[in-house]
Amino acid sequence: MTGNRFWRLDRHPEGNADFARFLTLCEEDAVPLAEGEVRIAVEWLSMDAGTRMWMSPRTDGYQPPLPLGAKMVGLVLGRVSESRDSVFPVGTLVRGFGQWAEEAVVVPALAGLEAVDESVSDPRQHFGALGMNAWTAYVGVREVAAVKPGEWLAVSAAAGATGSLACQVGRNLGANVVGIAGGAEKCRWLIEELGVQMAIDYRAEDVEARLATIPGGIHAFFDNVGGPILDAVLPNMAHYGRVAICGMVAGYDSDAPMPGPARFDQILMRRLRVEGFFIPDFLERGAEFLPQLRAWLDAGKLTVRFDETRGIENVLTAYERMLTGKNIGKVVVRL
Amino acid sequence: MTGNRFWRLDRHPEGNADFARFLTLCEEDAVPLAEGEVRIAVEWLSMDAGTRMWMSPRTDGYQPPLPLGAKMVGLVLGRVSESRDSVFPVGTLVRGFGQWAEEAVVVPALAGLEAVDESVSDPRQHFGALGMNAWTAYVGVREVAAVKPGEWLAVSAAAGATGSLACQVGRNLGANVVGIAGGAEKCRWLIEELGVQMAIDYRAEDVEARLATIPGGIHAFFDNVGGPILDAVLPNMAHYGRVAICGMVAGYDSDAPMPGPARFDQILMRRLRVEGFFIPDFLERGAEFLPQLRAWLDAGKLTVRFDETRGIENVLTAYERMLTGKNIGKVVVRL
Repeated sequence: MTGNRFWRLDRHPEGNADFARFLTLCEEDAVPLAEGEVRIAVEWLSMDAGTRMWMSPRTDGYQPPLPLGAKMVGLVLGRVSESRDSVFPVGTLVRGFGQWAEEAVVVPALAGLEAVDESVSDPRQHFGALGMNAWTAYVGVREVAAVKPGEWLAVSAAAGATGSLACQVGRNLGANVVGIAGGAEKCRWLIEELGVQMAIDYRAEDVEARLATIPGGIHAFFDNVGGPILDAVLPNMAHYGRVAICGMVAGYDSDAPMPGPARFDQILMRRLRVEGFFIPDFLERGAEFLPQLRAWLDAGKLTVRFDETRGIENVLTAYERMLTGKNIGKVVVRL
Repeated sequence: MTGNRFWRLDRHPEGNADFARFLTLCEEDAVPLAEGEVRIAVEWLSMDAGTRMWMSPRTDGYQPPLPLGAKMVGLVLGRVSESRDSVFPVGTLVRGFGQWAEEAVVVPALAGLEAVDESVSDPRQHFGALGMNAWTAYVGVREVAAVKPGEWLAVSAAAGATGSLACQVGRNLGANVVGIAGGAEKCRWLIEELGVQMAIDYRAEDVEARLATIPGGIHAFFDNVGGPILDAVLPNMAHYGRVAICGMVAGYDSDAPMPGPARFDQILMRRLRVEGFFIPDFLERGAEFLPQLRAWLDAGKLTVRFDETRGIENVLTAYERMLTGKNIGKVVVRL
């Protein structure tokens, strides 16, 4: 066996470009497992914006920063190749927080490791319609933003992995959906493939003005972004509207906190409820969400478009595509 | 009978000073009542920060701006002196949104007019422990911030009319309370008379650093102020904490929206719920809150300190005292 290749975080990145200046592809001999550990032969890596935060030295994020010199951490999907945990025997197809590596070594409880359903024909769906992005969309739209049939749901980063699922969860729950995304191609996809009522290209259009054409305002907003998009939505919220803060991608590449929304005052004026949530808090509820997501997937009511890159040596390219919004749908890397 | 004296809004005020440049004390002959109207011989006026907003031309506040040339509107307490509404016969002691006038003329349904309990020995308590500030404190602390026994509740503008009641509601519900106020005298009052566990003088102390000494963080924050105080509290919130946005006094004197909190990111990082509320939305629930408030008042568990000014000609002085925080407790004007 050749060595295990992995990405090591050597320096804190600046911005969302040139990650090769900050991470290094390394190789090591396989280390022996400790009691309770599991080795996974990684088949797929999931590229997620949230991981950008633990590359930075900020200690006030949702998770502590990753120490410099550590293997980069992210969601992995693969088969157990060696096990010192009887719950996960060799050969089990698993998903959890591992490393950007050919062979991930994890303690299952710390990694949120789960055996996934082998009957799903496209294993990428464990990062798609049945994955953490889908749980996030489901919890955020249904519980945090608490959208009701006939209401208007707005979604930012709507052509991204989570946003595109949030649009569809809203549509499946009977809401009218307005997706906000960057570029005409993404907006076309939202309208033609995902069935949203309105798509707004924030690069070419005045988001605030277009949202103002919705009579009665936005009842629920699923926000992945923060920043100027949030500023455009807040004055267009209906009274007693709900904002689910899923992400603040606009601020992840900075070592300083992103400034607060310019229209924070609207939280009072319109009596809004703004709530941050973090899907790992809901891991133990996954079994509750999965049947609905699986039923929608099987019925053709959850479309996931995959943006696929091959080879561990190309991870940084895929990651940068995702962070800069060049992707449509879910960015994955096939090892 | 001499004419009815009232304050007229002639220009939009700037800042929180020199209101005499913007409002004029006028006198008029009594106008005949229309069907459904009620005339009130005003005995007390309540000075409330929220009214500062409708003096400004902003159309995105909770209420439309008051037109220039109109009588200034605020909460009044007095007896019906003439009535064309059979629900409010002459002689009834009533409270509602009237005018800064010796004789207020209102349509009861639009004014939120209510007959108040004559058995309360100090009628000022209808603006105090039994008034809208108390309802605000009760709803904000108990329902919006949803404080539980043993949790830590922070209150800003804690020596003001609403804040001092919010501290006591929290204490009565079994919370530990930290009050944030401006000046040593206010802080002493909070500790010695209102029984808060900690008082922070934001003019002399580092609010963020003192809050950081609370182990486990703040579970619930009742915010009247916004701005730098909110910035100091957010990074000290416990995970899953609740912030009740009751007011944004820091921004009321500006025609432009107050900038959003610098630590808005903490809403995501700490999974906070931030909710704006507006007590007139809860008017019809007053009957539900009153028995508890009355019981606390009778048991000596709601202390209200009144800051009293006499004479309609001195209204602007009282108003400015309240807006600039020179008061301790509830500012009222005795006509």
